[in-house]
Amino acid sequence: MSEPLLITVAPTGAETAKEDCPQLPTTPEEIAETARACQAAGAAMIHLHVRDGEHRPTLDLGLLREWVAAVRDASDLVVQLSTGGSVHDPLDQRLQVLDAEPDSCSLTMGTTNFGDDVFSNPWPFVCELYQLAQDRGVAPEFELFDLGQVHALTRLLDRYGLPAGGRVHVDLVMGVPGGMNGTTDALVAAVRDLPPQTTSWSATGIGRSTLAVMLASLSKGGHLRVGMEDVLTIARGVPVESNAQLVERAVAVGALAQRTPMTPQEARVLIGATG
Amino acid sequence: MSEPLLITVAPTGAETAKEDCPQLPTTPEEIAETARACQAAGAAMIHLHVRDGEHRPTLDLGLLREWVAAVRDASDLVVQLSTGGSVHDPLDQRLQVLDAEPDSCSLTMGTTNFGDDVFSNPWPFVCELYQLAQDRGVAPEFELFDLGQVHALTRLLDRYGLPAGGRVHVDLVMGVPGGMNGTTDALVAAVRDLPPQTTSWSATGIGRSTLAVMLASLSKGGHLRVGMEDVLTIARGVPVESNAQLVERAVAVGALAQRTPMTPQEARVLIGATG
Repeated sequence: MSEPLLITVAPTGAETAKEDCPQLPTTPEEIAETARACQAAGAAMIHLHVRDGEHRPTLDLGLLREWVAAVRDASDLVVQLSTGGSVHDPLDQRLQVLDAEPDSCSLTMGTTNFGDDVFSNPWPFVCELYQLAQDRGVAPEFELFDLGQVHALTRLLDRYGLPAGGRVHVDLVMGVPGGMNGTTDALVAAVRDLPPQTTSWSATGIGRSTLAVMLASLSKGGHLRVGMEDVLTIARGVPVESNAQLVERAVAVGALAQRTPMTPQEARVLIGATG
Repeated sequence: MSEPLLITVAPTGAETAKEDCPQLPTTPEEIAETARACQAAGAAMIHLHVRDGEHRPTLDLGLLREWVAAVRDASDLVVQLSTGGSVHDPLDQRLQVLDAEPDSCSLTMGTTNFGDDVFSNPWPFVCELYQLAQDRGVAPEFELFDLGQVHALTRLLDRYGLPAGGRVHVDLVMGVPGGMNGTTDALVAAVRDLPPQTTSWSATGIGRSTLAVMLASLSKGGHLRVGMEDVLTIARGVPVESNAQLVERAVAVGALAQRTPMTPQEARVLIGATG
Protein backbone atom coordinates (compact mmCIF):
# COMPACT_ATOMS: atom_id res chain seq x y z
CA MET A 1 0.00 0.00 0.00
CA SER A 2 1.49 3.27 -1.07
CA GLU A 3 0.80 6.37 0.96
CA PRO A 4 -2.08 8.51 -0.32
CA LEU A 5 -0.92 11.50 -2.34
CA LEU A 6 -1.49 15.04 -1.10
CA ILE A 7 -2.13 17.34 -4.03
CA THR A 8 -2.07 21.01 -3.14
CA VAL A 9 -3.26 23.50 -5.71
CA ALA A 10 -1.73 26.99 -5.82
CA PRO A 11 -4.17 28.60 -8.24
CA THR A 12 -3.23 32.27 -8.42
CA GLY A 13 0.02 33.50 -6.86
CA ALA A 14 1.13 37.11 -6.80
CA GLU A 15 3.22 37.24 -9.95
CA THR A 16 0.97 36.88 -12.99
CA ALA A 17 -1.25 39.72 -14.22
CA LYS A 18 -4.89 38.97 -15.02
CA GLU A 19 -4.61 40.71 -18.38
CA ASP A 20 -1.76 38.39 -19.35
CA CYS A 21 -3.72 35.32 -18.32
CA PRO A 22 -7.52 35.73 -18.24
CA GLN A 23 -8.03 32.16 -17.02
CA LEU A 24 -6.14 32.96 -13.76
CA PRO A 25 -8.70 32.98 -10.91
CA THR A 26 -8.60 36.43 -9.32
CA THR A 27 -12.10 36.99 -7.88
CA PRO A 28 -14.01 35.28 -5.04
CA GLU A 29 -16.36 33.76 -7.60
CA GLU A 30 -13.53 32.42 -9.71
CA ILE A 31 -11.67 31.04 -6.69
CA ALA A 32 -14.83 29.31 -5.47
CA GLU A 33 -15.27 27.64 -8.84
CA THR A 34 -11.57 26.76 -8.91
CA ALA A 35 -11.78 25.19 -5.46
CA ARG A 36 -14.82 23.12 -6.42
CA ALA A 37 -13.27 21.89 -9.67
CA CYS A 38 -9.89 21.16 -8.12
CA GLN A 39 -11.39 19.16 -5.27
CA ALA A 40 -13.41 17.18 -7.80
CA ALA A 41 -10.18 16.57 -9.73
CA GLY A 42 -8.28 15.31 -6.68
CA ALA A 43 -6.80 18.24 -4.77
CA ALA A 44 -7.01 18.27 -0.97
CA MET A 45 -5.49 21.65 -0.08
CA ILE A 46 -5.46 25.10 -1.66
CA HIS A 47 -2.65 27.64 -1.28
CA LEU A 48 -4.14 31.11 -1.65
CA HIS A 49 -2.77 34.49 -2.65
CA VAL A 50 -5.64 36.99 -2.68
CA ARG A 51 -6.34 39.64 -5.34
CA ASP A 52 -8.32 42.87 -5.06
CA GLY A 53 -11.05 44.30 -7.31
CA GLU A 54 -8.39 45.36 -9.82
CA HIS A 55 -6.93 41.80 -9.78
CA ARG A 56 -3.84 43.06 -7.97
CA PRO A 57 -2.22 41.14 -5.07
CA THR A 58 -3.51 42.34 -1.70
CA LEU A 59 -3.23 41.48 1.98
CA ASP A 60 -6.46 43.33 2.86
CA LEU A 61 -7.94 41.43 5.76
CA GLY A 62 -11.54 41.79 4.59
CA LEU A 63 -10.68 40.31 1.22
CA LEU A 64 -8.65 37.53 2.80
CA ARG A 65 -11.66 36.58 4.92
CA GLU A 66 -13.92 36.76 1.88
CA TRP A 67 -11.71 34.41 -0.14
CA VAL A 68 -11.39 31.94 2.75
CA ALA A 69 -15.18 31.90 3.12
CA ALA A 70 -15.68 31.48 -0.61
CA VAL A 71 -13.43 28.43 -0.70
CA ARG A 72 -15.06 26.92 2.38
CA ASP A 73 -18.52 27.43 0.94
CA ALA A 74 -17.56 25.80 -2.34
CA SER A 75 -15.36 22.93 -1.13
CA ASP A 76 -13.87 20.97 1.76
CA LEU A 77 -10.32 21.89 0.77
CA VAL A 78 -7.83 22.68 3.51
CA VAL A 79 -7.38 26.44 3.24
CA GLN A 80 -3.79 27.63 3.34
CA LEU A 81 -3.11 31.34 3.11
CA SER A 82 0.20 32.54 1.78
CA THR A 83 2.09 34.75 4.22
CA GLY A 84 4.51 35.65 1.45
CA GLY A 85 2.22 38.27 -0.01
CA SER A 86 3.90 39.84 -2.97
CA VAL A 87 7.59 40.74 -2.82
CA HIS A 88 6.63 44.33 -2.02
CA ASP A 89 4.42 43.77 1.04
CA PRO A 90 5.67 44.92 4.46
CA LEU A 91 6.40 42.26 7.05
CA ASP A 92 3.81 43.41 9.62
CA GLN A 93 1.00 43.10 7.08
CA ARG A 94 2.16 39.60 6.31
CA LEU A 95 1.79 38.65 9.99
CA GLN A 96 -1.83 39.85 9.93
CA VAL A 97 -2.74 37.14 7.42
CA LEU A 98 -3.34 34.82 10.38
CA ASP A 99 -6.23 37.06 11.48
CA ALA A 100 -8.21 35.63 8.56
CA GLU A 101 -8.21 32.29 10.41
CA PRO A 102 -6.99 29.90 7.71
CA ASP A 103 -6.43 26.21 8.45
CA SER A 104 -2.82 26.54 7.38
CA CYS A 105 -0.33 29.24 6.47
CA SER A 106 2.82 29.18 4.41
CA LEU A 107 6.03 30.07 6.24
CA THR A 108 9.09 30.68 4.10
CA MET A 109 12.27 29.90 5.96
CA GLY A 110 14.60 32.57 4.61
CA THR A 111 15.38 35.37 2.22
CA THR A 112 16.22 34.84 -1.42
CA ASN A 113 16.39 36.67 -4.69
CA PHE A 114 13.20 36.19 -6.68
CA GLY A 115 13.97 37.27 -10.23
CA ASP A 116 14.92 40.94 -10.03
CA ASP A 117 13.21 41.26 -6.63
CA VAL A 118 14.06 40.02 -3.16
CA PHE A 119 11.64 37.77 -1.28
CA SER A 120 12.32 39.01 2.23
CA ASN A 121 11.99 36.67 5.21
CA PRO A 122 14.51 37.82 7.81
CA TRP A 123 15.12 35.39 10.65
CA PRO A 124 13.36 37.47 13.34
CA PHE A 125 10.24 37.65 11.11
CA VAL A 126 10.30 33.90 10.58
CA CYS A 127 10.51 33.30 14.32
CA GLU A 128 7.68 35.76 15.08
CA LEU A 129 5.39 34.30 12.44
CA TYR A 130 6.09 30.77 13.62
CA GLN A 131 5.25 31.56 17.23
CA LEU A 132 2.09 33.37 16.13
CA ALA A 133 1.01 30.28 14.17
CA GLN A 134 1.68 28.16 17.25
CA ASP A 135 -0.44 30.50 19.40
CA ARG A 136 -3.31 30.56 16.92
CA GLY A 137 -3.29 26.84 16.22
CA VAL A 138 -2.66 27.42 12.50
CA ALA A 139 -0.74 24.61 10.79
CA PRO A 140 2.33 25.99 9.07
CA GLU A 141 3.61 24.69 5.76
CA PHE A 142 7.32 25.38 5.67
CA GLU A 143 8.28 26.69 2.23
CA LEU A 144 11.92 25.92 1.46
CA PHE A 145 13.58 27.65 -1.48
CA ASP A 146 17.14 26.51 -0.89
CA LEU A 147 19.42 24.35 1.27
CA GLY A 148 20.01 27.13 3.78
CA GLN A 149 16.28 27.27 4.39
CA VAL A 150 16.24 23.54 5.05
CA HIS A 151 18.92 24.08 7.65
CA ALA A 152 17.06 27.07 9.09
CA LEU A 153 14.01 24.86 9.66
CA THR A 154 16.13 22.57 11.82
CA ARG A 155 17.18 25.56 13.91
CA LEU A 156 13.60 26.83 14.18
CA LEU A 157 12.20 23.52 15.41
CA ASP A 158 15.09 23.00 17.80
CA ARG A 159 14.50 26.46 19.28
CA TYR A 160 10.70 26.73 19.37
CA GLY A 161 9.46 23.13 19.28
CA LEU A 162 6.75 21.61 17.10
CA PRO A 163 3.75 23.36 15.54
CA ALA A 164 0.51 23.36 17.53
CA GLY A 165 -0.82 20.38 15.57
CA GLY A 166 2.32 18.35 16.18
CA ARG A 167 3.03 17.81 12.48
CA VAL A 168 5.86 19.23 10.36
CA HIS A 169 4.83 19.56 6.71
CA VAL A 170 7.32 20.98 4.23
CA ASP A 171 7.00 22.21 0.66
CA LEU A 172 10.10 22.50 -1.52
CA VAL A 173 9.71 25.43 -3.91
CA MET A 174 12.22 24.82 -6.68
CA GLY A 175 13.33 26.59 -9.81
CA VAL A 176 12.68 30.20 -8.73
CA PRO A 177 15.42 32.41 -10.26
CA GLY A 178 17.43 33.00 -7.08
CA GLY A 179 16.44 29.78 -5.29
CA MET A 180 17.65 26.23 -5.75
CA ASN A 181 17.41 24.76 -9.20
CA GLY A 182 14.40 22.64 -10.12
CA THR A 183 16.35 19.43 -10.57
CA THR A 184 16.39 15.94 -9.16
CA ASP A 185 19.85 16.59 -7.75
CA ALA A 186 18.68 19.63 -5.79
CA LEU A 187 15.61 17.79 -4.53
CA VAL A 188 17.73 14.90 -3.32
CA ALA A 189 20.08 17.29 -1.52
CA ALA A 190 17.20 19.14 0.13
CA VAL A 191 15.23 16.05 1.18
CA ARG A 192 18.35 14.45 2.63
CA ASP A 193 18.80 17.39 5.00
CA LEU A 194 15.18 17.74 6.17
CA PRO A 195 15.02 17.82 9.98
CA PRO A 196 14.10 14.53 11.66
CA GLN A 197 10.88 16.10 12.97
CA THR A 198 9.57 16.33 9.38
CA THR A 199 6.40 14.25 9.00
CA SER A 200 5.60 14.97 5.33
CA TRP A 201 6.90 16.95 2.39
CA SER A 202 5.76 18.03 -1.03
CA ALA A 203 7.55 19.77 -3.87
CA THR A 204 6.75 22.09 -6.72
CA GLY A 205 8.91 23.10 -9.66
CA ILE A 206 8.39 26.55 -11.11
CA GLY A 207 7.96 26.95 -14.85
CA ARG A 208 9.65 24.39 -17.01
CA SER A 209 11.01 22.49 -13.99
CA THR A 210 7.50 21.38 -13.05
CA LEU A 211 7.66 17.90 -14.59
CA ALA A 212 11.17 17.08 -13.39
CA VAL A 213 10.28 18.08 -9.84
CA MET A 214 6.96 16.21 -9.93
CA LEU A 215 8.66 13.00 -11.02
CA ALA A 216 11.52 13.38 -8.56
CA SER A 217 9.12 13.99 -5.69
CA LEU A 218 7.02 10.92 -6.52
CA SER A 219 10.14 8.84 -6.95
CA LYS A 220 11.13 9.67 -3.37
CA GLY A 221 7.66 9.27 -1.90
CA GLY A 222 6.86 12.97 -1.63
CA HIS A 223 3.64 14.88 -2.21
CA LEU A 224 2.83 17.43 -4.93
CA ARG A 225 1.93 21.07 -5.25
CA VAL A 226 0.73 22.20 -8.66
CA GLY A 227 -1.14 25.21 -10.00
CA MET A 228 -1.05 28.34 -12.08
CA GLU A 229 0.97 30.17 -9.43
CA ASP A 230 3.86 27.96 -10.45
CA VAL A 231 3.39 27.14 -14.13
CA LEU A 232 1.34 28.62 -16.98
CA THR A 233 1.96 26.10 -19.73
CA ILE A 234 0.85 22.47 -19.87
CA ALA A 235 3.39 21.68 -22.57
CA ARG A 236 5.89 23.78 -24.48
CA GLY A 237 3.99 26.77 -25.82
CA VAL A 238 0.57 25.43 -24.76
CA PRO A 239 -1.17 27.57 -22.11
CA VAL A 240 -2.76 25.97 -19.07
CA GLU A 241 -6.56 26.09 -19.41
CA SER A 242 -7.40 25.81 -15.73
CA ASN A 243 -5.98 24.83 -12.38
CA ALA A 244 -8.09 21.68 -12.46
CA GLN A 245 -6.20 20.64 -15.59
CA LEU A 246 -2.94 20.72 -13.62
CA VAL A 247 -4.52 18.78 -10.74
CA GLU A 248 -5.77 16.17 -13.20
CA ARG A 249 -2.28 15.75 -14.57
CA ALA A 250 -0.88 15.35 -11.04
CA VAL A 251 -3.50 12.70 -10.32
CA ALA A 252 -2.58 10.85 -13.50
CA VAL A 253 1.14 10.92 -12.77
CA GLY A 254 0.44 9.91 -9.17
CA ALA A 255 -1.64 6.98 -10.38
CA LEU A 256 1.34 5.68 -12.35
CA ALA A 257 3.26 5.76 -9.07
CA GLN A 258 0.31 3.88 -7.51
CA ARG A 259 -0.59 6.80 -5.27
CA THR A 260 -4.26 7.65 -4.69
CA PRO A 261 -5.24 11.28 -4.07
CA MET A 262 -5.67 12.09 -0.41
CA THR A 263 -9.01 13.46 0.77
CA PRO A 264 -9.18 16.89 2.41
CA GLN A 265 -9.87 15.19 5.74
CA GLU A 266 -6.78 13.02 5.36
CA ALA A 267 -4.80 16.13 4.47
CA ARG A 268 -5.96 17.81 7.68
CA VAL A 269 -4.56 14.93 9.69
CA LEU A 270 -1.37 14.85 7.61
CA ILE A 271 -0.46 18.47 8.25
CA GLY A 272 -1.98 18.77 11.72
CA ALA A 273 -4.74 21.22 10.73
CA THR A 274 -7.27 19.71 13.06
CA GLY A 275 -7.88 22.65 15.37
CA MET B 1 51.59 15.87 -9.53
CA SER B 2 48.72 17.39 -7.59
CA GLU B 3 47.60 20.89 -8.40
CA PRO B 4 49.15 23.61 -6.23
CA LEU B 5 46.84 24.76 -3.43
CA LEU B 6 45.47 28.30 -3.36
CA ILE B 7 45.16 29.49 0.22
CA THR B 8 43.22 32.71 0.59
CA VAL B 9 43.25 34.44 3.96
CA ALA B 10 40.21 36.44 5.08
CA PRO B 11 41.74 38.14 8.09
CA THR B 12 39.12 40.56 9.40
CA GLY B 13 35.56 40.47 8.06
CA ALA B 14 32.81 42.85 9.10
CA GLU B 15 31.22 40.85 11.91
CA THR B 16 33.64 40.67 14.84
CA ALA B 17 34.27 43.64 17.14
CA LYS B 18 37.85 44.55 17.99
CA GLU B 19 37.04 44.68 21.69
CA ASP B 20 35.82 41.10 21.56
CA CYS B 21 38.94 39.95 19.74
CA PRO B 22 42.00 42.19 20.16
CA GLN B 23 44.10 39.97 17.88
CA LEU B 24 41.78 40.76 14.93
CA PRO B 25 43.74 42.98 12.48
CA THR B 26 41.80 46.25 12.13
CA THR B 27 44.42 48.90 11.29
CA PRO B 28 46.66 49.42 8.24
CA GLU B 29 49.68 48.52 10.37
CA GLU B 30 48.08 45.33 11.63
CA ILE B 31 46.89 44.33 8.18
CA ALA B 32 50.35 44.88 6.73
CA GLU B 33 51.88 42.65 9.39
CA THR B 34 49.12 40.08 8.81
CA ALA B 35 49.77 40.09 5.07
CA ARG B 36 53.49 39.61 5.57
CA ALA B 37 53.04 36.79 8.07
CA CYS B 38 50.34 35.02 6.06
CA GLN B 39 52.37 35.11 2.85
CA ALA B 40 55.32 33.68 4.76
CA ALA B 41 53.00 30.94 6.06
CA GLY B 42 51.72 30.02 2.60
CA ALA B 43 48.81 32.28 1.65
CA ALA B 44 48.65 33.66 -1.89
CA MET B 45 45.59 35.92 -1.74
CA ILE B 46 44.00 38.16 0.88
CA HIS B 47 40.27 38.94 1.12
CA LEU B 48 39.89 42.34 2.75
CA HIS B 49 37.12 44.03 4.69
CA VAL B 50 38.37 47.45 5.82
CA ARG B 51 37.90 49.04 9.27
CA ASP B 52 37.98 52.70 10.27
CA GLY B 53 39.83 54.46 13.10
CA GLU B 54 37.25 53.14 15.57
CA HIS B 55 37.77 49.60 14.20
CA ARG B 56 34.29 49.66 12.63
CA PRO B 57 33.57 48.30 9.12
CA THR B 58 33.80 51.01 6.46
CA LEU B 59 33.66 51.43 2.71
CA ASP B 60 35.45 54.80 2.82
CA LEU B 61 37.41 54.97 -0.42
CA GLY B 62 40.46 56.65 1.14
CA LEU B 63 40.74 53.89 3.74
CA LEU B 64 40.21 51.19 1.14
CA ARG B 65 43.09 52.64 -0.88
CA GLU B 66 45.24 52.88 2.24
CA TRP B 67 44.65 49.22 3.13
CA VAL B 68 45.33 48.06 -0.43
CA ALA B 69 48.59 50.01 -0.44
CA ALA B 70 49.55 48.68 2.98
CA VAL B 71 49.15 45.08 1.84
CA ARG B 72 51.03 45.71 -1.40
CA ASP B 73 53.90 47.36 0.43
CA ALA B 74 54.15 44.47 2.87
CA SER B 75 53.58 41.49 0.58
CA ASP B 76 53.01 40.12 -2.92
CA LEU B 77 49.56 38.79 -2.00
CA VAL B 78 46.78 39.10 -4.55
CA VAL B 79 44.55 41.81 -3.09
CA GLN B 80 40.86 41.03 -3.12
CA LEU B 81 38.45 43.61 -1.74
CA SER B 82 35.12 42.49 -0.39
CA THR B 83 32.18 44.15 -2.12
CA GLY B 84 29.90 42.76 0.57
CA GLY B 85 30.70 45.51 3.00
CA SER B 86 28.75 44.96 6.18
CA VAL B 87 25.11 43.89 5.99
CA HIS B 88 24.09 47.52 6.52
CA ASP B 89 25.99 49.17 3.65
CA PRO B 90 24.03 50.62 0.71
CA LEU B 91 24.48 48.99 -2.67
CA ASP B 92 25.92 52.05 -4.45
CA GLN B 93 28.74 52.35 -1.92
CA ARG B 94 29.54 48.70 -2.45
CA LEU B 95 29.97 49.35 -6.19
CA GLN B 96 32.52 52.08 -5.42
CA VAL B 97 34.87 49.51 -3.89
CA LEU B 98 36.28 48.92 -7.38
CA ASP B 99 37.56 52.52 -7.39
CA ALA B 100 40.24 51.38 -4.93
CA GLU B 101 41.73 49.31 -7.80
CA PRO B 102 42.09 45.90 -6.18
CA ASP B 103 43.38 42.90 -8.16
CA SER B 104 40.19 41.04 -7.37
CA CYS B 105 36.78 41.66 -5.85
CA SER B 106 34.27 39.38 -4.21
CA LEU B 107 30.90 39.12 -5.93
CA THR B 108 28.14 37.38 -4.01
CA MET B 109 25.60 35.80 -6.31
CA GLY B 110 22.39 36.33 -4.36
CA THR B 111 20.56 37.43 -1.24
CA THR B 112 20.44 35.37 1.92
CA ASN B 113 19.67 35.68 5.57
CA PHE B 114 22.86 36.19 7.58
CA GLY B 115 21.96 35.47 11.18
CA ASP B 116 19.32 38.03 12.14
CA ASP B 117 20.34 40.27 9.22
CA VAL B 118 19.91 40.02 5.47
CA PHE B 119 22.94 40.04 3.16
CA SER B 120 21.41 41.86 0.23
CA ASN B 121 22.57 41.14 -3.31
CA PRO B 122 19.59 41.67 -5.61
CA TRP B 123 20.02 40.37 -9.13
CA PRO B 124 20.25 43.81 -10.81
CA PHE B 125 23.06 44.76 -8.37
CA VAL B 126 24.90 41.52 -9.12
CA CYS B 127 24.68 42.20 -12.85
CA GLU B 128 25.84 45.81 -12.49
CA LEU B 129 28.80 44.89 -10.28
CA TYR B 130 29.84 42.11 -12.63
CA GLN B 131 29.84 44.36 -15.67
CA LEU B 132 31.77 47.01 -13.75
CA ALA B 133 34.40 44.40 -12.84
CA GLN B 134 34.59 43.39 -16.50
CA ASP B 135 35.07 47.03 -17.54
CA ARG B 136 37.74 47.69 -14.93
CA GLY B 137 39.63 44.43 -15.51
CA VAL B 138 39.15 43.36 -11.88
CA ALA B 139 39.04 39.59 -11.39
CA PRO B 140 35.83 38.59 -9.61
CA GLU B 141 35.69 35.84 -7.05
CA PHE B 142 32.13 34.53 -7.09
CA GLU B 143 30.97 33.94 -3.52
CA LEU B 144 28.28 31.28 -3.39
CA PHE B 145 26.26 30.87 -0.19
CA ASP B 146 23.67 28.39 -1.45
CA LEU B 147 22.57 26.25 -4.40
CA GLY B 148 20.45 29.04 -5.87
CA GLN B 149 23.56 31.19 -6.08
CA VAL B 150 25.38 28.42 -7.94
CA HIS B 151 22.57 28.41 -10.43
CA ALA B 152 22.57 32.22 -10.62
CA LEU B 153 26.24 32.12 -11.63
CA THR B 154 25.35 29.96 -14.60
CA ARG B 155 22.76 32.54 -15.66
CA LEU B 156 25.22 35.42 -15.16
CA LEU B 157 27.96 33.86 -17.28
CA ASP B 158 25.49 32.83 -19.97
CA ARG B 159 24.16 36.38 -20.14
CA TYR B 160 27.31 38.50 -19.78
CA GLY B 161 30.16 36.19 -20.77
CA LEU B 162 33.46 35.59 -19.02
CA PRO B 163 35.33 37.96 -16.69
CA ALA B 164 37.96 40.22 -18.26
CA GLY B 165 40.77 37.83 -17.28
CA GLY B 166 38.99 34.86 -18.82
CA ARG B 167 38.97 32.83 -15.59
CA VAL B 168 36.02 31.89 -13.39
CA HIS B 169 37.08 31.44 -9.78
CA VAL B 170 34.44 30.52 -7.20
CA ASP B 171 34.44 30.46 -3.42
CA LEU B 172 31.80 28.44 -1.55
CA VAL B 173 30.93 30.18 1.70
CA MET B 174 29.32 27.53 3.88
CA GLY B 175 27.76 27.37 7.31
CA VAL B 176 26.45 30.93 7.56
CA PRO B 177 23.13 30.86 9.46
CA GLY B 178 20.81 31.40 6.51
CA GLY B 179 23.09 29.90 3.85
CA MET B 180 23.82 26.30 2.96
CA ASN B 181 25.05 24.10 5.75
CA GLY B 182 28.79 23.56 6.17
CA THR B 183 28.74 19.87 5.35
CA THR B 184 30.29 17.51 2.85
CA ASP B 185 26.85 16.80 1.41
CA ALA B 186 26.18 20.47 0.71
CA LEU B 187 29.65 20.94 -0.79
CA VAL B 188 29.13 17.97 -3.10
CA ALA B 189 25.74 19.33 -4.21
CA ALA B 190 27.18 22.79 -4.87
CA VAL B 191 30.31 21.62 -6.71
CA ARG B 192 28.27 19.28 -8.89
CA ASP B 193 26.22 22.21 -10.17
CA LEU B 194 29.08 24.66 -10.82
CA PRO B 195 28.82 26.08 -14.34
CA PRO B 196 31.08 24.46 -16.93
CA GLN B 197 32.97 27.74 -17.34
CA THR B 198 34.33 27.39 -13.79
CA THR B 199 38.13 27.16 -13.83
CA SER B 200 38.80 26.90 -10.08
CA TRP B 201 36.97 26.88 -6.76
CA SER B 202 37.72 27.16 -3.11
CA ALA B 203 35.58 26.71 -0.02
CA THR B 204 35.38 28.02 3.50
CA GLY B 205 33.30 26.79 6.41
CA ILE B 206 32.15 29.33 8.96
CA GLY B 207 32.68 28.60 12.65
CA ARG B 208 32.67 24.99 13.65
CA SER B 209 32.16 23.81 10.08
CA THR B 210 35.66 24.99 9.15
CA LEU B 211 37.37 21.59 9.41
CA ALA B 212 34.63 19.59 7.68
CA VAL B 213 34.59 22.01 4.76
CA MET B 214 38.39 22.12 4.52
CA LEU B 215 38.61 18.34 4.32
CA ALA B 216 35.72 18.06 1.89
CA SER B 217 37.25 20.70 -0.37
CA LEU B 218 40.64 19.00 -0.43
CA SER B 219 39.00 15.62 -1.03
CA LYS B 220 37.41 17.02 -4.18
CA GLY B 221 40.49 18.89 -5.39
CA GLY B 222 39.31 22.34 -4.31
CA HIS B 223 41.21 25.27 -2.85
CA LEU B 224 40.90 26.80 0.62
CA ARG B 225 39.93 30.07 2.24
CA VAL B 226 40.72 30.44 5.91
CA GLY B 227 40.96 33.33 8.34
CA MET B 228 39.52 35.11 11.33
CA GLU B 229 36.62 36.47 9.28
CA ASP B 230 35.32 32.91 9.22
CA VAL B 231 36.45 31.27 12.44
CA LEU B 232 37.76 32.51 15.80
CA THR B 233 38.71 29.27 17.50
CA ILE B 234 41.46 26.87 16.50
CA ALA B 235 39.89 24.07 18.55
CA ARG B 236 36.87 23.88 20.80
CA GLY B 237 37.16 26.78 23.23
CA VAL B 238 40.69 27.73 22.12
CA PRO B 239 40.90 31.19 20.52
CA VAL B 240 42.80 31.70 17.26
CA GLU B 241 46.04 33.55 17.99
CA SER B 242 46.57 34.99 14.52
CA ASN B 243 45.54 34.61 10.92
CA ALA B 244 48.93 33.11 10.14
CA GLN B 245 48.09 30.29 12.55
CA LEU B 246 45.05 29.41 10.42
CA VAL B 247 47.13 29.60 7.22
CA GLU B 248 49.72 27.30 8.77
CA ARG B 249 47.01 24.78 9.58
CA ALA B 250 45.68 24.93 6.02
CA VAL B 251 49.19 24.35 4.70
CA ALA B 252 49.60 21.35 6.99
CA VAL B 253 46.28 19.78 5.98
CA GLY B 254 47.05 20.54 2.34
CA ALA B 255 50.42 18.81 2.69
CA LEU B 256 48.66 15.64 3.81
CA ALA B 257 46.66 15.85 0.58
CA GLN B 258 50.00 16.32 -1.24
CA ARG B 259 49.12 19.85 -2.27
CA THR B 260 51.81 22.53 -2.19
CA PRO B 261 50.84 26.14 -1.47
CA MET B 262 50.48 28.22 -4.60
CA THR B 263 52.59 31.37 -4.93
CA PRO B 264 50.89 34.75 -5.31
CA GLN B 265 52.05 34.83 -8.94
CA GLU B 266 50.47 31.43 -9.61
CA ALA B 267 47.30 32.66 -7.91
CA ARG B 268 47.19 35.65 -10.25
CA VAL B 269 47.22 33.32 -13.22
CA LEU B 270 44.69 31.00 -11.61
CA ILE B 271 42.05 33.67 -11.09
CA GLY B 272 42.91 35.82 -14.11
CA ALA B 273 44.16 38.81 -12.10
CA THR B 274 46.90 39.63 -14.53
CA GLY B 275 45.71 43.06 -15.66
